[in-house]
Amino acid sequence: MRQSQLFFITKREEKKEKAISAKFLIRGGFIEKLASGIYNFLPLGFLVLKKIEKIIEEEMKKIGGQQLLLAALHPKEFWEKTGRWETMDDIYKLKEGEKEFALGPTHEEIIVPLAKKFIHSFKDLPLYLFQIQTKFRKEMRAKGGLLRTKEFLMKDLYSFHATEEDLDNYYEKVKQAYFRIFERCQIKEKTYLTFASGGTFSKYSHEFQTLTPAGEDTIFICQNCKQAINKEIKDQVPNCPNCGQNKFLKEKAIEVGNIFKLKEKFSFPFNLTFLDKDGKEKLVLMGCYGIGLGRLMAAICEVNHDKNGICWPAEVSPFKFHLLWIGSQNEKKVAEKFYEKFKQKFEILFDDRENSPGEKLVEADLLGITWRLVISKKTLEKKCFELKKREEKEGKLIKIEKAFEVLKSL
Amino acid sequence: MRQSQLFFITKREEKKEKAISAKFLIRGGFIEKLASGIYNFLPLGFLVLKKIEKIIEEEMKKIGGQQLLLAALHPKEFWEKTGRWETMDDIYKLKEGEKEFALGPTHEEIIVPLAKKFIHSFKDLPLYLFQIQTKFRKEMRAKGGLLRTKEFLMKDLYSFHATEEDLDNYYEKVKQAYFRIFERCQIKEKTYLTFASGGTFSKYSHEFQTLTPAGEDTIFICQNCKQAINKEIKDQVPNCPNCGQNKFLKEKAIEVGNIFKLKEKFSFPFNLTFLDKDGKEKLVLMGCYGIGLGRLMAAICEVNHDKNGICWPAEVSPFKFHLLWIGSQNEKKVAEKFYEKFKQKFEILFDDRENSPGEKLVEADLLGITWRLVISKKTLEKKCFELKKREEKEGKLIKIEKAFEVLKSL
Repeated sequence: MRQSQLFFITKREEKKEKAISAKFLIRGGFIEKLASGIYNFLPLGFLVLKKIEKIIEEEMKKIGGQQLLLAALHPKEFWEKTGRWETMDDIYKLKEGEKEFALGPTHEEIIVPLAKKFIHSFKDLPLYLFQIQTKFRKEMRAKGGLLRTKEFLMKDLYSFHATEEDLDNYYEKVKQAYFRIFERCQIKEKTYLTFASGGTFSKYSHEFQTLTPAGEDTIFICQNCKQAINKEIKDQVPNCPNCGQNKFLKEKAIEVGNIFKLKEKFSFPFNLTFLDKDGKEKLVLMGCYGIGLGRLMAAICEVNHDKNGICWPAEVSPFKFHLLWIGSQNEKKVAEKFYEKFKQKFEILFDDRENSPGEKLVEADLLGITWRLVISKKTLEKKCFELKKREEKEGKLIKIEKAFEVLKSL
Repeated sequence: MRQSQLFFITKREEKKEKAISAKFLIRGGFIEKLASGIYNFLPLGFLVLKKIEKIIEEEMKKIGGQQLLLAALHPKEFWEKTGRWETMDDIYKLKEGEKEFALGPTHEEIIVPLAKKFIHSFKDLPLYLFQIQTKFRKEMRAKGGLLRTKEFLMKDLYSFHATEEDLDNYYEKVKQAYFRIFERCQIKEKTYLTFASGGTFSKYSHEFQTLTPAGEDTIFICQNCKQAINKEIKDQVPNCPNCGQNKFLKEKAIEVGNIFKLKEKFSFPFNLTFLDKDGKEKLVLMGCYGIGLGRLMAAICEVNHDKNGICWPAEVSPFKFHLLWIGSQNEKKVAEKFYEKFKQKFEILFDDRENSPGEKLVEADLLGITWRLVISKKTLEKKCFELKKREEKEGKLIKIEKAFEVLKSL
C-alpha cells in the first residue's frame, strides 16, 4: 500500500499514557482512544490484530478447536442459573421493556447450555469449542492503552471431557499451544507460566505472565524451574508447586493468557451430563482458556521496542516490508518501479511521500515494520537497496536484481 | 474435517420459524437461537459467515476501502452532538457510574470525529474507511432468523469527498461493488437496485432488495429498466426515476444493502471541514454504505434452496466438497483413503459416520454443501465416485484416478 493513501496519524508525543505500548500504539496511529478503556483500531492496528487472530486461530485448530461465534447479548436467565447475575459486579446490564440482558463479560453461561444440546453420550466427548469475540466489562481500573479495557476482543476456548485424565491431558496441550502462540508473537522469552488461584474446583489455575514494568501483577519466578507464582497466592505457597525449590525473583508482569480447570463448576448448574460407557449419567468436566487479543498486542509492544518505536515481530507486523526512497526524483522513480514490481508478491508499505529523509526514517522506526528497504543515491550507485531489520542497527546492501530471492527468503 | 467430530446438530423440523432461511439454518445447525433476535453462529454457520466476510472485504478493498475496527461502546456526548441520543429510539443505553454509553447501532458519530483528526486539506481526500463490526439495535420486529436481529455483524463503509462530483462517482463505484458481492453470493438475479427515501440531504437513497416471500418490504420493479421503487415512496414517485416509464411489478423483498449520500449531514455537527485548493474552508461531503452479513446469509438461503435444504453457492459454502460413503466397510476404506489423500488440498467435509445411507443423503441435502462426492459399491465397480452439484438432480461418475484434476477444476 502507498503510505500517501494510508489512513494513519502519527504524533510526536503522548504524555497522558504511561505504558510504553500505549504511547507507541497511539503515537504510531495504530489505535485511537475514544474514552477511558475504549479504543478504535485504525488500519495499521487492525492489520496487526488480524495477524494475531490468525496465529491464535491456527494454534487453536491444531489442538482440535472448532470455531464459532456466540452472541454478546445474554438474556438474564442464563446468568441467574449460575448466580453470577448478582455476584459479578463488572457486568454491563441492559433493559429492553421487561427483558434484561447482560453484555457478555465471558461465555460460560452461553456455551454450556449450547453444548448440552449436543453432548449426550461419552461418544460426543471430548469437544473443543472456541471463538474470537468482543467482551464487555465495567472496568474501573482501565488504563495503559490496550492493557486493560472495557471492551476487548478475546479468544475463549472451552473444552468438555468425560474424565479428569482427559481434561488434564488436554490442559497440557493447551499450555503448549499457548507457548507456541507466544513464541510466534515473540514474547515467549519473557512469558512465565504462573500458578494462580484455582477457585473452588482446582488447587491452582495457570496464568501466562509477561514481564514488563507496565504490568499490574507481581510474580515470583522460581530460579530453579522458571515457573512463577502470582503474588495473590504467594503467602500460601512458600515453595514452587512445580519443583519444590524456594528461590524466587520478584518481577512486574502482565497476564497475557489464563487457563483454568473448571471441572464441574458450570456443568452442575446447567446439569450438563453424559451417559458413560457404564450407562451412568455423569457431569461433564470442563476447562476454559482465554487470551485477550488487544492485551497481547500491547504485550508484544512492551517486549519488542526501543526508544524510537515498536519493533514488530515478523508474524504480526502490519506489513512485512517498509519501502522508503531518499534523495531526488530519480531515486523515487526507482522505488516506484520496485514497488510496482513487487506489490502483488509481498506485503509492502511504500512511503511514496515527499517528506524529508529524517521525517521518513523517524516515522519508519515509530511504525516498526519488521523489514525496512531504503533506496537512496548511495545504494543506487552500487545498484543496491539497503535492507535492515527493525531491531538491528546496521542494514546491508542487496543488489536490486536479487530483490525477489532475498525478500522471498525472509 | 470429519463429520463425526463436527459440532453440529440437525433437526427434522422447525415449526416456530416461518422464513425458509430461518428454518433451514436452524435445522442444519448453522445457527442457534438464544433469544428473540439473538443468535449464536455454530461452526458451520461461522464458516459461511467468514466466507461472506472475505467476499465483502475483497470487494471493499478493490474500491480503495481501508479496514479498521471501531468500538461498540460510544460515550453519550458523541450522540448528543447529532441529536440522535434523543431521536433514535432503538439505541441500547448503558450506565456506568456517572457515565452513559450507547451500544453502537451505527458509527457515523464515531467515524466523523476520527476522520476529523486526519482530514485537513483537499489533499487528504477522498478517503474510504470500512469495518465489519457488531451493531446493536432494540428491535421490536425481530423475526425470521437472521433476517432481522438485535445484534448483527455489519459492514459499514464511509466515504469522504471534496466535491459532489467525486461523491457521485464513488457512489456509482460502490453500486458496482455491491452487485459484484451479490453476484458472488448468487443472489444478483433476484436483487434489484431500489429507490428509497433520501432523508433531508438527498432526493433518494438506494437499497438493494432481494425478492423473497419472507421479505418485509414491498417493492415495485420497473418492467422497462429493472430498477425498483420502495413502497414507502411509491406514492410520491409514480414514474420510474431511472427511465421514466410506469409499468411496475409488485413484489415482496428483503433489503440486503443500502447506500446513502449523507453529504453534509454529519460533517456539519462535527464541523468536519477541509481547506480547498482556493484556500477556503469547506464541509466534507460523505456517503455511507451498509451490508448486514447475517441478513445476507439469510438472503442467500432464501434464494438458493429447494424443498430438502440449502444449496450453498460455491463461494460461500461452508465446505466446498461433501464426501459420503455408502455401503460396507470396503467402501468406507476407499473413502477414508480418498479423504486422507485430499484433505490438505481441498475443503472437504467427510461424513465418516456409520449412519444409514438415507440419513446421510438427507442430511447432506439439508447442509447444502455445493459439491457432493459419493463413494458406493456401484461407483467403485467402475473405479469411480459420483460427483453431484447440490442443485442438480443427476450426478456423474468420475474416475477416482482423475479426482485431483476434476476437483481442482471446480
